[in-house]
Amino acid sequence: MEERQLKRKEQIPSPKGKLGVLIPGVGGAVSTTFMAGVEAIRRGLAEPIGSLTQMGTIRLGKRDEYRIPRIKDFVPLASLEDLVFGGWDIYEANAYEAASFAKVLQRDHLDPIKDFLETIRPMPAVFDRRFVKNLDGNHVKPGTDLRAHVEAVKEDIARFKEENGLDRCVMIWCGSTEVHLKPEEPHLSLEAFQKAVDANDPRIAPSMLYALAALESGIPYINGAPNLTVDIPALVELAREKHMPIAGKDFKTGQTLMKTILAPGLKARMLGLEGWYSTNILGNRDGLVLDDKDSFKTKEESKLSVLEYILQPQLYPNLYKNYYHKVTINYYPPRGDNKEGWDCIDIFGWLGYPMQIKVDFQCRDSILAAPICLDLVLFTDLAQRIGLHGIQEWLSFYFKSPMHKEGLYPEHDLFIQLMKLKNTLRYLMGEEQITHFGLDYYLGEK
Amino acid sequence: MEERQLKRKEQIPSPKGKLGVLIPGVGGAVSTTFMAGVEAIRRGLAEPIGSLTQMGTIRLGKRDEYRIPRIKDFVPLASLEDLVFGGWDIYEANAYEAASFAKVLQRDHLDPIKDFLETIRPMPAVFDRRFVKNLDGNHVKPGTDLRAHVEAVKEDIARFKEENGLDRCVMIWCGSTEVHLKPEEPHLSLEAFQKAVDANDPRIAPSMLYALAALESGIPYINGAPNLTVDIPALVELAREKHMPIAGKDFKTGQTLMKTILAPGLKARMLGLEGWYSTNILGNRDGLVLDDKDSFKTKEESKLSVLEYILQPQLYPNLYKNYYHKVTINYYPPRGDNKEGWDCIDIFGWLGYPMQIKVDFQCRDSILAAPICLDLVLFTDLAQRIGLHGIQEWLSFYFKSPMHKEGLYPEHDLFIQLMKLKNTLRYLMGEEQITHFGLDYYLGEK
Amino acid sequence: MEERQLKRKEQIPSPKGKLGVLIPGVGGAVSTTFMAGVEAIRRGLAEPIGSLTQMGTIRLGKRDEYRIPRIKDFVPLASLEDLVFGGWDIYEANAYEAASFAKVLQRDHLDPIKDFLETIRPMPAVFDRRFVKNLDGNHVKPGTDLRAHVEAVKEDIARFKEENGLDRCVMIWCGSTEVHLKPEEPHLSLEAFQKAVDANDPRIAPSMLYALAALESGIPYINGAPNLTVDIPALVELAREKHMPIAGKDFKTGQTLMKTILAPGLKARMLGLEGWYSTNILGNRDGLVLDDKDSFKTKEESKLSVLEYILQPQLYPNLYKNYYHKVTINYYPPRGDNKEGWDCIDIFGWLGYPMQIKVDFQCRDSILAAPICLDLVLFTDLAQRIGLHGIQEWLSFYFKSPMHKEGLYPEHDLFIQLMKLKNTLRYLMGEEQITHFGLDYYLGEK
Amino acid sequence: MEERQLKRKEQIPSPKGKLGVLIPGVGGAVSTTFMAGVEAIRRGLAEPIGSLTQMGTIRLGKRDEYRIPRIKDFVPLASLEDLVFGGWDIYEANAYEAASFAKVLQRDHLDPIKDFLETIRPMPAVFDRRFVKNLDGNHVKPGTDLRAHVEAVKEDIARFKEENGLDRCVMIWCGSTEVHLKPEEPHLSLEAFQKAVDANDPRIAPSMLYALAALESGIPYINGAPNLTVDIPALVELAREKHMPIAGKDFKTGQTLMKTILAPGLKARMLGLEGWYSTNILGNRDGLVLDDKDSFKTKEESKLSVLEYILQPQLYPNLYKNYYHKVTINYYPPRGDNKEGWDCIDIFGWLGYPMQIKVDFQCRDSILAAPICLDLVLFTDLAQRIGLHGIQEWLSFYFKSPMHKEGLYPEHDLFIQLMKLKNTLRYLMGEEQITHFGLDYYLGEK
Repeated sequence: MEERQLKRKEQIPSPKGKLGVLIPGVGGAVSTTFMAGVEAIRRGLAEPIGSLTQMGTIRLGKRDEYRIPRIKDFVPLASLEDLVFGGWDIYEANAYEAASFAKVLQRDHLDPIKDFLETIRPMPAVFDRRFVKNLDGNHVKPGTDLRAHVEAVKEDIARFKEENGLDRCVMIWCGSTEVHLKPEEPHLSLEAFQKAVDANDPRIAPSMLYALAALESGIPYINGAPNLTVDIPALVELAREKHMPIAGKDFKTGQTLMKTILAPGLKARMLGLEGWYSTNILGNRDGLVLDDKDSFKTKEESKLSVLEYILQPQLYPNLYKNYYHKVTINYYPPRGDNKEGWDCIDIFGWLGYPMQIKVDFQCRDSILAAPICLDLVLFTDLAQRIGLHGIQEWLSFYFKSPMHKEGLYPEHDLFIQLMKLKNTLRYLMGEEQITHFGLDYYLGEK
Repeated sequence: MEERQLKRKEQIPSPKGKLGVLIPGVGGAVSTTFMAGVEAIRRGLAEPIGSLTQMGTIRLGKRDEYRIPRIKDFVPLASLEDLVFGGWDIYEANAYEAASFAKVLQRDHLDPIKDFLETIRPMPAVFDRRFVKNLDGNHVKPGTDLRAHVEAVKEDIARFKEENGLDRCVMIWCGSTEVHLKPEEPHLSLEAFQKAVDANDPRIAPSMLYALAALESGIPYINGAPNLTVDIPALVELAREKHMPIAGKDFKTGQTLMKTILAPGLKARMLGLEGWYSTNILGNRDGLVLDDKDSFKTKEESKLSVLEYILQPQLYPNLYKNYYHKVTINYYPPRGDNKEGWDCIDIFGWLGYPMQIKVDFQCRDSILAAPICLDLVLFTDLAQRIGLHGIQEWLSFYFKSPMHKEGLYPEHDLFIQLMKLKNTLRYLMGEEQITHFGLDYYLGEK
Repeated sequence: MEERQLKRKEQIPSPKGKLGVLIPGVGGAVSTTFMAGVEAIRRGLAEPIGSLTQMGTIRLGKRDEYRIPRIKDFVPLASLEDLVFGGWDIYEANAYEAASFAKVLQRDHLDPIKDFLETIRPMPAVFDRRFVKNLDGNHVKPGTDLRAHVEAVKEDIARFKEENGLDRCVMIWCGSTEVHLKPEEPHLSLEAFQKAVDANDPRIAPSMLYALAALESGIPYINGAPNLTVDIPALVELAREKHMPIAGKDFKTGQTLMKTILAPGLKARMLGLEGWYSTNILGNRDGLVLDDKDSFKTKEESKLSVLEYILQPQLYPNLYKNYYHKVTINYYPPRGDNKEGWDCIDIFGWLGYPMQIKVDFQCRDSILAAPICLDLVLFTDLAQRIGLHGIQEWLSFYFKSPMHKEGLYPEHDLFIQLMKLKNTLRYLMGEEQITHFGLDYYLGEK
Repeated sequence: MEERQLKRKEQIPSPKGKLGVLIPGVGGAVSTTFMAGVEAIRRGLAEPIGSLTQMGTIRLGKRDEYRIPRIKDFVPLASLEDLVFGGWDIYEANAYEAASFAKVLQRDHLDPIKDFLETIRPMPAVFDRRFVKNLDGNHVKPGTDLRAHVEAVKEDIARFKEENGLDRCVMIWCGSTEVHLKPEEPHLSLEAFQKAVDANDPRIAPSMLYALAALESGIPYINGAPNLTVDIPALVELAREKHMPIAGKDFKTGQTLMKTILAPGLKARMLGLEGWYSTNILGNRDGLVLDDKDSFKTKEESKLSVLEYILQPQLYPNLYKNYYHKVTINYYPPRGDNKEGWDCIDIFGWLGYPMQIKVDFQCRDSILAAPICLDLVLFTDLAQRIGLHGIQEWLSFYFKSPMHKEGLYPEHDLFIQLMKLKNTLRYLMGEEQITHFGLDYYLGEK
């Protein structure tokens, strides 16, 4: 029984030694923003804005006890000082060059850490253009034999670990969105999967090879893209077998983040929804990839289901059964890495009277994603240390399509997700669950 | 000890007989929309959209039990059939005329219930123009003696109860915003207050006289405006003495509702706030009243504090200490009762990079307020039946400035408010508190 | 020489007798809104808002002469009293039923003119589903022989004229957008065109058959859709031969109207353009038709070229050569006939600093199009009476893709278009051209 | 007669020698952005985006002649090379320090021209805090004697001219908005004005003293703020006497620019206006000054009248007589020098149906104003060389409240203003007026 294995409170081992962060897509905008930020914070040049682990607090006990430590002071997370970055990319550029190309961070922020970024040089990537049609790179592993690629990645990992004297690793996918895949026969069991790898089955995506290599190397895998990857029984099975956590999928940033903030608000007040039109414009490499219909389909599915789960039309047919939901993404170069989302929301209230909400979110994709990477790396590392393996539902907070146990539904409501995360931390540390029930403050009164 | 008095589960008496709804400002846009809607629902012409008591559900037990009753089937609330409406107004128009003037509901919706609305005729109001400068009406109680006004209202109540054969009543203020008052000496104890009434002290507002009359008549009081009214020790004292619930203040609709949805979302993700500029345009009588600086001051305070409490700058100085918050309201006749709020929100993320959110909320004030009135009447009636008296903090969900016990801080986060409300209901009905902790679903797995 | 034939000033014959308005697509939202409005105006129930001919004025002479007549009092246009409506549609519904279906006008506006609208019953339409894929109707002319269809339409026209005792007619296309066609061999000369009709050539669209029937019947043709129709040499040739005016194409409403207002403003101030992203949502039949890629292509071309012509990148390469222009249209049922356009405009100024403009235009397609129909009918009728035949460039003001003489460029700037229209009217009536040169007021001063 | 004095075509003297640009408020955001930009352009580091004189073209002759020179190649304007900058400010900072403080231009743009900017040091200003309540500076001329201040400014001018070997000068006010003044007795004649200066009359604003000094020194005066200054008979009289041009007032940027683009568009189409709500947020010194009610009143008048003149309610009472127009300005520090204007426009069309336009203009005040300064300096210098003195109505294009001859109305429509400007240039250079009449291209056809 797992319950007995799970370490809690004083049993949780302190994080000792270096923690390797292995990133497929290490030369992308998100990765370089993440790594540059961590280094800037380490050097005291910046605050970890947007990171729940670093800035967030957690209330313990009653409202009038005022016990509100920082999360990082409450749970034994790895320190930023101990993170060591590495990864793979289809372009050869080092992290400084890549960050300059991405144009997310300004020169003023990159230059002081140029020395650090230049040391991060991507290893050659596993790449198959059938899965990402609008990109092409030449810094790739030779050949087309899938098993050989897996082995090459495992060797990369082992070498990286040794060269850097690492204690533990976490792999986090920050690469591109792959074309849409449905779970098919080779994905349904570990055995079938391994056979398909050996047979170079075209239904095995590169991201799955990375995940396979990670898990076989005893490393947790975090899926930042809407790719299928570890959402298949085969790899869930492997994760359990190896006692490794897996988490995903698709970092929740921008418009979907906004949606999981607004939709719970409308539902809280039982306001009906007639339609929700969402358009996105972005001009970075991600935008270019999503200009390909097949990659967009993968993303679209991830974006559309959000409302269904939050609004629960089966419970509220009069309010949420017939709304029209449309999401479009457009490549728009003038926006660069800055993403802009415009939402046009048609709601109705008392007696069916219509009202409208328009939201223009001028956000920055990588700026929103970077602190999520940090938190996920630290929390997933915590999970591996305390023995929480398999699907990490308590990390739903960070994902557009949270993984969940079969038979349960995913939780998309940002506020329930946050509650879930914090009450999980309270549980792990032996603190009382917070329910926000407050009658007790009043019942004692005369 | 109150704990023993509080009735729970099977002890809660079923709501028997008619429930009177007494409304100061019964001829206003909110009141008429509320009453017209209830009647339309009773006649099967409309759904109670926006009402948590009528449409809302509540999850009980584990996620996979699928026990999710409607709130009105879970808690013994009064039935819509049993509501009887009455109230006071400074204009003589009956509710049909008043609703036509307000132009919130269309002729198509008013005509089928014209017969009902015409029967609701306001009683003469207690009015003092020093407290609402931009309005003037002549359907008012004669004289300027405050005690005489209180007694007149109590007689109105008694007559209304008798004529309609009522079992219980609730008073809910739907009148205008009064000029800004600060708690002063005559407000600090019941004794001083009663003396001030006798002395016609100019610091006693008309709304306080209504509340006094209600509580002395054994009727709960709900404060839908940002007026001071029951926010003073004197009337809290009286409420406890009479074992009556009081709730307030200022119905949370429109822009503030949006703010208490968005701000928790930004904070959840630890995104910093640099500035929040909010402008409102509205063209109804409320807009006219708020064009008076003194009335606006009362409203402004109610609107500004929301962010402070949600964002907790004392916990997150790097994120929320120095934001610039500005709220303006402008009378704009073309908008009529439809209120429009535009929010311009400047946030910052990872490494301090700025992002922007613009929200244009084209809402309808009375349409959003009406279901709140309904819920508050029903929940407050529940409170009086089970013996929950004094401040009803668990109803914070409905208010811009929730009342709270001294020594506690108010809770403004819409999602925590909803959690609080639902867990209170669970508690009352002997169900387990929901924490959204979900590790238990996974810990049993091999 | 035409110059001698053109009638000016006193020579222009007064409009005598009835003017028939023949509308392909008479049962659509635009047509019914147009006809209902004209009747409401005739009955004194409404003002002709949006109509330049009816509400517009024209300044004559110097600024300090204050001679500013209404256009309809200045130029001898047909009177609204003399308009008689008829047309074709693929649905059998009369104009009252069709208008009710379209949901543009409210019952309050339709009911008082129900008697009138019910008398307008469409004649069976020429229809070929290959040209409008997302619609299907059964009120169509039998068979597939094109020449037979042309003759049938001509007979319809003759019968309509006789039955109503008409003096003159104008045909105005208010039907759907057809799939995209390029001018090919059968379109290049009248002879080839007539042969192609005889041969049932698939490159002959239904709209061309209507135009052919109109011109052969001595009736001007106005093209309200982006269809190719009279934009081909064959029909220009026929128009000249028959001395008939033709005008088009694509009524300028909504987002494109906004574009031709804003772009000249940016250019006036020499502000550079980096990108212009336009998205449209609409939920009417037009939206459904444009959900078909081939129909959208026709519309897109009409919408995209607008900026190119206004901004003149060849003259201003530093400002307008490399902007990114994207237009999307999305079917969004909640919006109904109300169209919403959101524009995101990225401009740059002094030293290249970027600025942004966001425009949300919540407009009503048919409400904007109806007065255009009225003006075009009246002005085109004027043109036929004074002998102005062929392309009517002076009516560019009303079109997304104004027709123009070969060798000239189209004029898209709304303000130049208006100037052109008004100075044409001044010319026809023998008044001095207005140049807005105003130094003369000052040069006489000491 | 002036007509004979006006030089045209070949008679216009070429601009020889240096042209001094004298700026009250030389240390402000607009001034420093203007000067920095001119220098950057001179050094080939930037393009003069936004400047009609530098980037603009002018069409000559018929559309098919394709004669479209740049304006600066068509009219003999002073060259950028010949501009020499100087001025006054209440802060001592040199132009580099001032530009750094203003935060309009980034370090990347300022540093390459630091040497140039550091040489521009303000002369002590004439300042009276009663006229600009929210500012305070100590780099001011001593004493309170108005005549002495005028003489001091004249000496400053003479010294500046001599030291720099200037041929001609232009004075352009880029200082703050003064409190609202109405023309009173001392403003009505030159004689009364001079007496009032001698008497230290409190109705004489500092800006009037600068204008007086300029005109008496034989230098044209341009009024970039909404101050009264040269809008009084006294100074118009002096300008004529001295044969000097005067121009004003209030640079047209931001929201008002947008208004004079959109309003003519709505009017062109005869769309009615029900209301126009405009709110501005800005965080620079200008915003701080306008937070003072008296300064705002000056600005408000300048902003409100725009719509009245464009829409001509006297001609179109059904469309434009009863609209509600509201303008607010709010100080909002997070925005810095970037101004944001939000417009909410309620229009109505055919049969009175309502539609809405929302415009969010995220602009930059100084970036929009700087090229206007450049154009006005060059055109006003042209005016003085050709003998065009007094009010320069042809420069209305650049101003929120264009000056105009008594008995005429101001022209606010941006497109008519541009037409007026260009046709004036055509007239001066002996070219034909453009009317956009285009029938002539068609009348020759067979």
